[in-house]
Amino acid sequence: MTEKLVLHEYSASGNCYKVRLTAALVGKPLERREYDIMKGETRTPAFLANVNANGRIPVLQVGDRFIPESNAASHYVADGSPLIPSDPFDHADMLRWMFWEQYNHEPNIATLRFWMRWIGPDKLNALQKMQVPVKRASGEAALKLMDEHLAGRRWFVGDGASLADICLFAYTHVAADADFDLGRYPNVTAWIKRVEALPNYVPMTA
Amino acid sequence: MTEKLVLHEYSASGNCYKVRLTAALVGKPLERREYDIMKGETRTPAFLANVNANGRIPVLQVGDRFIPESNAASHYVADGSPLIPSDPFDHADMLRWMFWEQYNHEPNIATLRFWMRWIGPDKLNALQKMQVPVKRASGEAALKLMDEHLAGRRWFVGDGASLADICLFAYTHVAADADFDLGRYPNVTAWIKRVEALPNYVPMTA
Repeated sequence: MTEKLVLHEYSASGNCYKVRLTAALVGKPLERREYDIMKGETRTPAFLANVNANGRIPVLQVGDRFIPESNAASHYVADGSPLIPSDPFDHADMLRWMFWEQYNHEPNIATLRFWMRWIGPDKLNALQKMQVPVKRASGEAALKLMDEHLAGRRWFVGDGASLADICLFAYTHVAADADFDLGRYPNVTAWIKRVEALPNYVPMTA
Repeated sequence: MTEKLVLHEYSASGNCYKVRLTAALVGKPLERREYDIMKGETRTPAFLANVNANGRIPVLQVGDRFIPESNAASHYVADGSPLIPSDPFDHADMLRWMFWEQYNHEPNIATLRFWMRWIGPDKLNALQKMQVPVKRASGEAALKLMDEHLAGRRWFVGDGASLADICLFAYTHVAADADFDLGRYPNVTAWIKRVEALPNYVPMTA
């Protein structure tokens, strides 16, 4: 039995795009339900009680069950596809990049994108303002590490595209929104073009 | 062929303990190599070039290959064991808690533990001092969410212990080091006792 997949999302979020892109690449239909995070629609009592007690999107609904966390939801959608390597080392290596993305990449690049483009640099509070240069430096370090890893490689893990590429692509390809200059990272730029050339690729705005 | 497993670690780190505890529970031998993070031993050119370009521990060495990121390394060690559910939904749900741990739990509880016990409250810089109340509130929110999830449940995912429990246990059971009062979270306290009662359990100090 195939259970219906519903993505609870805010479509401009790179984390939500990961799940949509994964579904497109593996050819699974996905219903979409939009929430306006700027209006607090993921912090309502109903959302917290029924969708995600953590008050965040994306959440993947599988029948009547829910999977929060973008990378976990993408893992469910990609299960059984070539996007998840069957070799145990490669599987763990893929997860390594996905955990690294959530720890070293997203809190810097995605957060700066949100602060610069959604909140606005003038409206940041004192703690956020103080964190900007730290997140800027950490974001550059993350892009540099990706660029060095991709020297002589086409994909992050093994010989083909995996979820690691999809999950890293989401916020990397819009890093200019957070005022990062991707021109400084030629291997990353070439890899972005490879992801965009994958069969059934969909852009973030689709 | 079984390749030798070597854990590059700092043994007081909860992230490193995750890998040791997983190996103990599944009965896999693990060689240990200690680095003093307080002396910068994971930022040397040799470490960055040969072990982890990200300059962090733990790193699991599998033969001559390396897996950074504690939760990915634990996934490799637990592969094929009951700690990783075979059902795709439960597998993704387990990963959901592991990604949540790295995003909502570790950066608050583990970081405060390090700041309070390793650096010392008086030696924090201005940005760190400003972040303490935020991390304190976020850490309490993480423990509360765990406590609510565990109401009426024995384990985080499905009916048995999984890697989600192991990875969440590592920093939760030493949250007092970061001045969190676990007495406020009775379901968490009961779950900690269940983890400690697992066959082949080893304490963090072993």
